[in-house]
Formats: sequence, C-alpha cells, structure tokens
Amino acid sequence: MPSTPKPIQRSKKIFEEIDKDPKIQRKPDLLFLCNGGEPHMDYSFFYVSGFPNGLFEGSGLIAERDADTIAVFTSPLEEDIAKANSDGIVVHTDYLHPRDDMKKFARKKVKTIGINARDITFESLKMIRSTFKGAKVIDVSSPIARARCVKDDSEIEAIRKACDIASKAYSEVPDLLKDGTMESEIAAELAYKMQKAGGSGVSFESIVSFGKNSAFPHYTAGEARLRKGQFVLLDYGAKFHRYCSDITRTLVHGSASAQQKLIYNTVKEANAVGIDNCLAGKTGAEVHKAAAKIIDSTEFKGRFIHSLGHSLGLAVHDPGVGLSLRSHESLEPGMVLTIEPGIYLPSLGGVRIEDDVLITKSRPRVLTTSTRDLIEA
Amino acid sequence: MPSTPKPIQRSKKIFEEIDKDPKIQRKPDLLFLCNGGEPHMDYSFFYVSGFPNGLFEGSGLIAERDADTIAVFTSPLEEDIAKANSDGIVVHTDYLHPRDDMKKFARKKVKTIGINARDITFESLKMIRSTFKGAKVIDVSSPIARARCVKDDSEIEAIRKACDIASKAYSEVPDLLKDGTMESEIAAELAYKMQKAGGSGVSFESIVSFGKNSAFPHYTAGEARLRKGQFVLLDYGAKFHRYCSDITRTLVHGSASAQQKLIYNTVKEANAVGIDNCLAGKTGAEVHKAAAKIIDSTEFKGRFIHSLGHSLGLAVHDPGVGLSLRSHESLEPGMVLTIEPGIYLPSLGGVRIEDDVLITKSRPRVLTTSTRDLIEA
Repeated sequence: MPSTPKPIQRSKKIFEEIDKDPKIQRKPDLLFLCNGGEPHMDYSFFYVSGFPNGLFEGSGLIAERDADTIAVFTSPLEEDIAKANSDGIVVHTDYLHPRDDMKKFARKKVKTIGINARDITFESLKMIRSTFKGAKVIDVSSPIARARCVKDDSEIEAIRKACDIASKAYSEVPDLLKDGTMESEIAAELAYKMQKAGGSGVSFESIVSFGKNSAFPHYTAGEARLRKGQFVLLDYGAKFHRYCSDITRTLVHGSASAQQKLIYNTVKEANAVGIDNCLAGKTGAEVHKAAAKIIDSTEFKGRFIHSLGHSLGLAVHDPGVGLSLRSHESLEPGMVLTIEPGIYLPSLGGVRIEDDVLITKSRPRVLTTSTRDLIEA
Repeated sequence: MPSTPKPIQRSKKIFEEIDKDPKIQRKPDLLFLCNGGEPHMDYSFFYVSGFPNGLFEGSGLIAERDADTIAVFTSPLEEDIAKANSDGIVVHTDYLHPRDDMKKFARKKVKTIGINARDITFESLKMIRSTFKGAKVIDVSSPIARARCVKDDSEIEAIRKACDIASKAYSEVPDLLKDGTMESEIAAELAYKMQKAGGSGVSFESIVSFGKNSAFPHYTAGEARLRKGQFVLLDYGAKFHRYCSDITRTLVHGSASAQQKLIYNTVKEANAVGIDNCLAGKTGAEVHKAAAKIIDSTEFKGRFIHSLGHSLGLAVHDPGVGLSLRSHESLEPGMVLTIEPGIYLPSLGGVRIEDDVLITKSRPRVLTTSTRDLIEA
C-alpha cells in the first residue's frame, strides 16, 4: 500500500483550499474537527488523523495553521490506538471533562476557528464556543470537501481494494439465485463474502431487491422470495481501511423477457456513456446529461429519477463534486465518482448499473471490475 | 409484535418531557428533527416517525404541539416508503430545495422551536434558522433522551428479538475456534449468522480480539490468528427493526489457566451483581458502584477502566440514563441497559461479560440469553 500522508500534510491541504476560497474572508488560525456520539462521526477527523481503527466517539482534533503536529483529544479508551498511530500527532486524553489541554490552545488568543458544519453536531459546536470564548467560528466544510474529493495514492489504493472485494463477491451471486431465496439471505451472503475477503464491513446497508421492489431506489432488503423472471437488483459495497466501494448490478432470475433486455441494455449504454464522459475538465452536470440523454431518447424517458453519481471515499456519499444537473464543478484527476444510471418502472421493477470510476489525466479508470453483461441465472 | 405507537403519541411523549423540564423555560411550539447526510442520522427522527426502512438522508420532521399529525419532509427517493407508512404522517417531498411546504409552517408565526442539539448538524440548524426567521431555537435533547430511554412494548420486543439473534450466534462460536483462525473471520461469521437469522445487520463493527488484543476495550477485529490458551473476546450485536442488541462474551481457546479463570470469575460475579442491582429507583451510579466494588475488592483493583453500562435502543449507545459514577438519575421500568464489567491486563488480555437488561417493576429481565459460564473451546 502507498503510505498514508502525515496528518499535517492533510490539514495543510485543507488550509490551502481554505485560502483559495474567495467566500471565506476571515481565514482561520486553526481547524477543529469533532466526532459526536455514535453515529455522528466526522470522517474528516479520520481523513486528517489517519487512525486505521478505533471508534473515537466524542473525540476531536485541532490542526493549527503552520504547526508541525496536530493535537488529538480523545478518551483513555482510545489512547492505545491513538498512541500506536501518533506519528505527527500529540495525543491528549482529557477530552471529555477537564479540557485543560484544550484550554492551552484557547489561551493562545485564537481569533478564528474553522469547523465542518456539515458533520459537527450543534452540541460539539457549543463546546467549542464555550472553550474558545470570543473566537469567531466559521464554516469551512466546502474547502474540506474539496480537499477530500481529490484522493491521494493511499486513498485510491484503499478504494481500489474495497472495489475488488465487492466485485469478487458479485461473481458468486449467480450461484445463490434459487426459487424462494429471500432478499435478506442474499444480503447476508454478500456481507459475509466481503468480510471473509478482507473487508472490515459493508459500506452501507445492502440493497437487495427482487421484482417490483427493484423499482424503489432506496429499498434495502426484506423478506420477499425470488421467483423466475424477476429482476434481482444488488446495490452494496465493502469497507477497506475505512474507505468505501459502492457497486450496483442487476440480474434476471431465469430468462429475461424482451422488455427486460431492452431496459437493461438502455441502462448499460447510459452507464458506458457516463463512464466515457468521466474526463478531467468536464463538469458534473455535463456527465449527468450525457448519460441521461441516452435514457431520455428512448421510451423510458423520465424513468431515470436520480442523479448519475456521487463522490466516493471515507463516506459512501462523500462530499464534494457530484454528478447531477446542479453540479457545476469540473472533474479533476484523483476524484473517484460513482456512475449509476437506472430505469424504474413501478409495474415491473428497475435496473441500475453502478461503477466506481477514478478520474485521471487521460481515460477514466473503472475500479469495479464485475461484468456489465446481463446475467440470467 | 406489539404495534408501534403512532408518531403523534411519541412526539407527545417528548413534549411531556419538555414540559416537565425545569431547565427549559421557553416551551417550544414545535419540534424539528433533522437527518443530515450519511452518517448523520438522528435516530429520534425514526423514533417519532416509526419508518421501518429507508435511509432518509437529509430528511426532517416537524411535530407541532397539539397537532393530530406530524409532517415529514423528504426526497422523492423516499416517498414510496414514507407513504406506505404514513398513518398519522403528512409526507412532503420538497425538503431539499424549494421548501415551500416548510415555509407554510414558518408563516404560522412559530415563536420557539425545539431541536436535538446532540444529533443535529450545524448545517441543518442553519437551514432551520433561515427558514424560521425570528423564531428562537432551543435544545431539547435531554427531554428527547428521557422519552427515548423508557421503551414501549414494541421497542422492547424489537430489542428482545435483536438480543435473541445475537445470543443464538454466540452458541455457534465454540465450533469456530481453531488454531490459526483470524479475528476478522470470526467477525464475518457472527455478522453472517445474525443476518441469516433475521437481523438487518450488525449494530456496530464487531469487536473480536484474541490474546493481548482483548486488553483494549475499543479494538475491533484484525488479522491476529488464534493460539491455544488465548482469551477470545467478542463484543457485538444485531439490529432488528432498527433496534440494537449489544452482547460481550469472553472464551478461552484450549484450556484456561488458573489466572484466566480467576479473572473470568471475578468479572462474572461483577456482572451478576450489576444485573441484580438493576432495580427501579436505584441510581446509575449505585449500580456501577455495586459491580465495581466486586472487582476493586480483588487483586484486579483499578483494572475496570470504563463505566458499567449504557442505555440501549435505536442507538447502541442510546442517550439517557447511563451506569457510571456520574449517573445520578434513577432507573425506571422500561429502560434497557447494558451491564458490562471488565478486567484488562495489558500483559495478558481482558475479560468482559455484557448483558442487556430490561428494568421492570420487580426483578430485572435479562434479554441476552447466552451462557455466562466460561467456555474453553
């Protein structure tokens, strides 16, 4: 694996984005990233600290502009993990109550603190305001998103591994499709196969939907039992070293009807066009439109009801550039995006084909390697 | 399953707790609960709405004092799930941009809005402030926590089912313990068995730690391979209908040494004393002290380094009453708490035994049914 950059390099990248941002006029002296109680993790805390494991509930980090180290505030429960991974990190274990160490920072006459409004709870914000009295708190979530959106080599390698794990699991799906199999059983098998292959878990609750259920993009997995001729839509992913993959494939149990093949091939073409358009310099909206146009030029016009894709990283829906009509930012090398067109017909079901794509200086690199040919099994 | 109370009954329960709270002087006209982007779900949104599935990222709900229905604001992606479960709910699908429907509430001259500071992101809070200009926003996270802390029958049944699923998985663990088995393999097996048994997933990333790794309470599961004579500590849980279980058992691979047995039996006694003290009217601190005293009266004094337990529900670490030296609230019938004493020796490893306990009017009811006898396998 490529080595993970030191915490200070990642916080520096965030400060660079802050300094480039014309909307942020008061530039912060320090960055304060906080995890709340479960499930309120700020993945940016892990982006900067690089801690490979541990929960770090209620923990925070302070990165000062121009400092050589960052400060992590955590509980004694996480101390061992923090200290075992503390290159460039000063670990404090007085986070939850006395906060004496944190007050030392406050006494430095901090004027402006950058926080991540998208991922900080109001409770944590109140704690910061009461500790750093008089300091101005400003939202730097957009620069943080831009820093996280362009991945470095160690991040790309983790995502690639997470994609491999998910792609490999798909190759074992056709053997699982029997009359009467339950959606939740397939979800259990996918999770198991990915964890046995080295994933630390699923990157989100898997969607396994049969027949008409596949027409609901956010259905998860229930007790429906598989019947011949039904669509089988699988949308799932693995986590590896905290990074996510996110893949969707749709199969048909038994033989596909002419209508099913037509839907499938339309989505497959939209997916291919979407991938081909993943080029540095294009805007997210341009990529979305190119793929949507394929669907909208058929009888399935209007049946692609969501955006084409999103950034992928520590979060399944990573912040930063997306692929929708509202995405006016340009793609850059190092970004990893999902390409996931779909067609949804309430009476019949839906098809979605999703791949994870790395933007490069030249052609896009598809990280999910499963076949996109229609499997009838 | 007992039927889930209607949304309006649950929001009413929160308003009752708000009205009883002497610290909240300005009583809100309405309650606004918001989910942020993944992973920032406010489980209170699901507590009130009762939606059995769906992700509901970036969705919110408004419960007005004295209204007959609640209003849910979500995206078209979740519309079908919301409308299929909309008894007592008016579903709006304009959450993300125009917010015209929400503005109708704002035009009612709302004076005070209750929010859940513990689970709302600062970004969502800014949206509320800009929509309801002039309204005062107050934190009602403590009354929400108190409402959620005392479970109703449908919640207890879901937790009991989640406990059954986790307990059953434990019975299959001894057969999995072979020389060379990896921690992550056991984690994969536990997740698989629980999902096959009807769980929707794990309630948190399972802790599976062998030997010295078991001395770190927040270690998860890595690549260590099992050797004879090692402790095997498993801390995991299932989700069922969004509710969590949380169980810990510790085994020895092969034969336990006299020292291991001594540690084990000390923790086992502390666990039993903790459970016996789970009586309505006792404070959390009293229960913690009763169990800690067992450990502190032995040579392992000082080796129990965390609190005895926490509330359990929609979150693994549910808000509300805890069991620690700082828990001065009294236990009430309907609360579900974990009892999880442990002893941690960095040179040798750790033992923790954790059960989920329902407080009743009389004796505590233990929901996790796995044996607490030391298994050598």
